[in-house]
Amino acid sequence: MMNNKGILIVLSGPAGTGKGTVCKEFLKRNADTSFSISATTRSPRPGEEDGREYFFISKDQFFKMKDDEGFLEYAEFCGNYYGTPVAAVMKKLDAGQNVILEIEVKGAMQIKEKVPEAVLVFIAPPSKEILRKRIEGRGTEPQDIIDRRMEIAENELALIHNYDYIIVNDQVEEAVKRFEIIKNAEKLKTIRNNEFILEVCK
Amino acid sequence: MMNNKGILIVLSGPAGTGKGTVCKEFLKRNADTSFSISATTRSPRPGEEDGREYFFISKDQFFKMKDDEGFLEYAEFCGNYYGTPVAAVMKKLDAGQNVILEIEVKGAMQIKEKVPEAVLVFIAPPSKEILRKRIEGRGTEPQDIIDRRMEIAENELALIHNYDYIIVNDQVEEAVKRFEIIKNAEKLKTIRNNEFILEVCK
Repeated sequence: MMNNKGILIVLSGPAGTGKGTVCKEFLKRNADTSFSISATTRSPRPGEEDGREYFFISKDQFFKMKDDEGFLEYAEFCGNYYGTPVAAVMKKLDAGQNVILEIEVKGAMQIKEKVPEAVLVFIAPPSKEILRKRIEGRGTEPQDIIDRRMEIAENELALIHNYDYIIVNDQVEEAVKRFEIIKNAEKLKTIRNNEFILEVCK
Repeated sequence: MMNNKGILIVLSGPAGTGKGTVCKEFLKRNADTSFSISATTRSPRPGEEDGREYFFISKDQFFKMKDDEGFLEYAEFCGNYYGTPVAAVMKKLDAGQNVILEIEVKGAMQIKEKVPEAVLVFIAPPSKEILRKRIEGRGTEPQDIIDRRMEIAENELALIHNYDYIIVNDQVEEAVKRFEIIKNAEKLKTIRNNEFILEVCK
């Protein structure tokens, strides 16, 4: 059964849920899926490379792209702007490639509105206690930073019901399998198989 | 992650798509899922047993149950009535067991209306030509019967867009796997994990 278009997958979840690891492992094993590189106005951190983690652009460039409808979604976070360049994503989807956007909740809601067939996946911690330990466990940060991170995580968790699926990341291996199940099930959705329907009904 | 309730799965598809075989194989391998036995006013065929293939009841009994809201859905087919007894299904769902209803399109639409979280799965032939061969291949029937069956199958296929998922039954083994992927993905749906959400957000 052929699928015309790739699936647009939005992946969100609080810091400390291991979202990045799950995403990386998933991409290694699923050649039919690629990662959308966001544009950001924040400075590169040590080890980050332009065009790998992010496209690092100026605020002027960012707002010009925004005004030209160049972003599928964008958001401001801690004074920096982040956006998903629309052209690259659409090109991949049209070629049948699935695309993952790792973005936060506000951006996810923009995607849901613009691309109703997008699939919103939330990576959740097994429990709030475990999330707290993971956030504290990063170690060297002062308590007020940890409290602030926990507050942000709780605000993100409060929006979980806006997502289509929840993956609890208790073990990375299991979480990746669940992610694959979601992708594979979505490929079987009626709305994604119009060509087959036309063929079998003609 | 605990799921409170089982998933109500509606399985439909034209005769000749191997729907029954896929369903039987699926049930063998998935102890978390059981089959809803319909009630019917038609006579048992040789080899059929009351309470195994169907509950065989009289028309009087059928209409009494219908008036008492005893059916989740019901339909008339070739002069006989078929219905899904609601009590047994609800008891299983409440106990966390998934339930498969193997019913035709009219019944499926009634379920979608009454139980919006039900999952509608259509078993489709790989192509219309293959469906025709399968229907003819049953062998001993006269041409007008075959034509009539093909017409019914085409009318069913025309309603495929009302279903959530399509499983193309090219190979039984693959079709069963796809069915399992759908069930497992549905368990990860946000709407089916309210208890977890309450727990992790509290």
